[in-house]
Amino acid sequence: MHVLIIGAAGMVGRKLAGHLAASGSLGGHPVEAMTLVDVVKPEAPVGYGGTVEVETADLSAAGTARRLLAGRPDVIFHLAAIVSGEAELDFDKGYRINLDGTRYLFDAIREINNEDGYRPRVVFTSSIAVFGAPLPYPIPDDFHTTPLTSYGTQKAICELLLADYSRRGFFDGIGIRLPTICIRPGKPNKAASGFFSSILREPLAGQEAILPVSEDVRHWHASPRSAVGFLVHGATIDLEKVGSRRNLSMPGLSATVGEQIEALRRVAGDKAVGLIRREPDEMIMKMVSGWAPGFEAKRATALGFVAEKSFDEIIRVHIEDEMGGKL
Amino acid sequence: MHVLIIGAAGMVGRKLAGHLAASGSLGGHPVEAMTLVDVVKPEAPVGYGGTVEVETADLSAAGTARRLLAGRPDVIFHLAAIVSGEAELDFDKGYRINLDGTRYLFDAIREINNEDGYRPRVVFTSSIAVFGAPLPYPIPDDFHTTPLTSYGTQKAICELLLADYSRRGFFDGIGIRLPTICIRPGKPNKAASGFFSSILREPLAGQEAILPVSEDVRHWHASPRSAVGFLVHGATIDLEKVGSRRNLSMPGLSATVGEQIEALRRVAGDKAVGLIRREPDEMIMKMVSGWAPGFEAKRATALGFVAEKSFDEIIRVHIEDEMGGKL
Repeated sequence: MHVLIIGAAGMVGRKLAGHLAASGSLGGHPVEAMTLVDVVKPEAPVGYGGTVEVETADLSAAGTARRLLAGRPDVIFHLAAIVSGEAELDFDKGYRINLDGTRYLFDAIREINNEDGYRPRVVFTSSIAVFGAPLPYPIPDDFHTTPLTSYGTQKAICELLLADYSRRGFFDGIGIRLPTICIRPGKPNKAASGFFSSILREPLAGQEAILPVSEDVRHWHASPRSAVGFLVHGATIDLEKVGSRRNLSMPGLSATVGEQIEALRRVAGDKAVGLIRREPDEMIMKMVSGWAPGFEAKRATALGFVAEKSFDEIIRVHIEDEMGGKL
Repeated sequence: MHVLIIGAAGMVGRKLAGHLAASGSLGGHPVEAMTLVDVVKPEAPVGYGGTVEVETADLSAAGTARRLLAGRPDVIFHLAAIVSGEAELDFDKGYRINLDGTRYLFDAIREINNEDGYRPRVVFTSSIAVFGAPLPYPIPDDFHTTPLTSYGTQKAICELLLADYSRRGFFDGIGIRLPTICIRPGKPNKAASGFFSSILREPLAGQEAILPVSEDVRHWHASPRSAVGFLVHGATIDLEKVGSRRNLSMPGLSATVGEQIEALRRVAGDKAVGLIRREPDEMIMKMVSGWAPGFEAKRATALGFVAEKSFDEIIRVHIEDEMGGKL
């Protein structure tokens, strides 16, 4: 089996490649080759027995998609996107990369499908940003997508394309609407959602973190490990069971910031919690107030997608996967 | 006020131009000029006191959109599309005209908006084809769009673009999801939905009509007069009241074929009903079984969009508007 990961240099892409390298298989089939692509050069995962090709490529450039498909990958993970904030600041770039880039990929597959019947599995990472306020809690599976960002719009459009191209038989697509990934490893970044991770990650490492919103803010989370699990399950699930509605809101954990902090207290004690400094930020509060508080995710759950059941578990996953198992 | 109608040669486009010509105004402002555009030459409406420009143009050709905007129309009705059946048969043509053509238009407006702040009202005709089976009855306003045709996919994508471009302030857009238009004037056509109109239209004219489905089939209807009313209301409504969710399922009448036939009996008698010949068609029955049975349309109703309340009324509208008021 040959696996192509587009967006392999990102956090989830790296973890996915690492997972496939470690397990060496996908859905019971050995993964003999991986092609890892991103706009910056991805790292080859360590300890992988198969062939790895690492490429720098921009999907929104003419001909890129066709070239990436030259090896006829059996499974394509499409994770590449510019993030919400950048897509909002640069309208053209957001549509070019997040929409046109994806469409080029889908059309290149369709072209080859027309030529020789090539029909790969395509796992597309979408986002809960396809939903826009006002939102109920929990959000049901059949709730409409009325995004309030260009990023969310681009993801929602790609979901529609994915479903139509799949219905037409050009490829076997599935869209995975990721929750906010928590705890994101690495340094604090400037994303408005960054505090959800940093109020746990920094105190776990003995460092101070800033909380810009009130403790009653409720949001929807899953760990990086769960995100990889969603993608792997999406790559191997029987699509007959999924049916024609190919875009699924993933399971996750709905928690308030206060509940996050109490979980931190249980796992790491009062001292860790004491490192959270409250610094209310009106702009972030306003943005976050429109975000999804939580989902029913009945379909995805019934289809076997699994996320964490408590924030204690999410914190423990971080300690195991990012801190060598030790506090 | 200058009004541009793209898709002006179609049935609804013609009626809309005729309505504006007759009333001479839109939302209390005189309509001094109309530009009527389609791939086949539209007819200039009779009895109009303003300036009419009639153009043949293909929106999916480079430069067309920018040229159409040269006169800086205040209101743009975008009705142009290839129909469901054709978009299904010709994948490329459907995406080129229904998706790319619309995006070219939106981007041309955005370009001028960037240059000089031009910000017209854009009234986009969408369709209940954005919804795909299984569907509840009635379909609530917040139900997700999971189309099962490429046409429905293209309309759903354009809705998302319209909302995002409006949110960004490039234009003031509103998307009008039209019910099935009944009674369509003119000759029977090959559309799978054609029988909904022909089982009334032909008997009213003393001719035989074929019914390919059973009488318990339930569907969602509004008259051509209502369709024009929706578009005019969409062109003049205060968009502050509409908010960020700019795509609205229009009100209509949910009726079974049996209820249509009983209305025909009340208006035109048993003899007319006797002209309906049952000729079951498995393929049409299968297609129709996935169509929308009816909508709540709460938002559109609260916003003042109005449709017929009975099929007797729909039939009477046809007699008034298409048969000179006489049976």
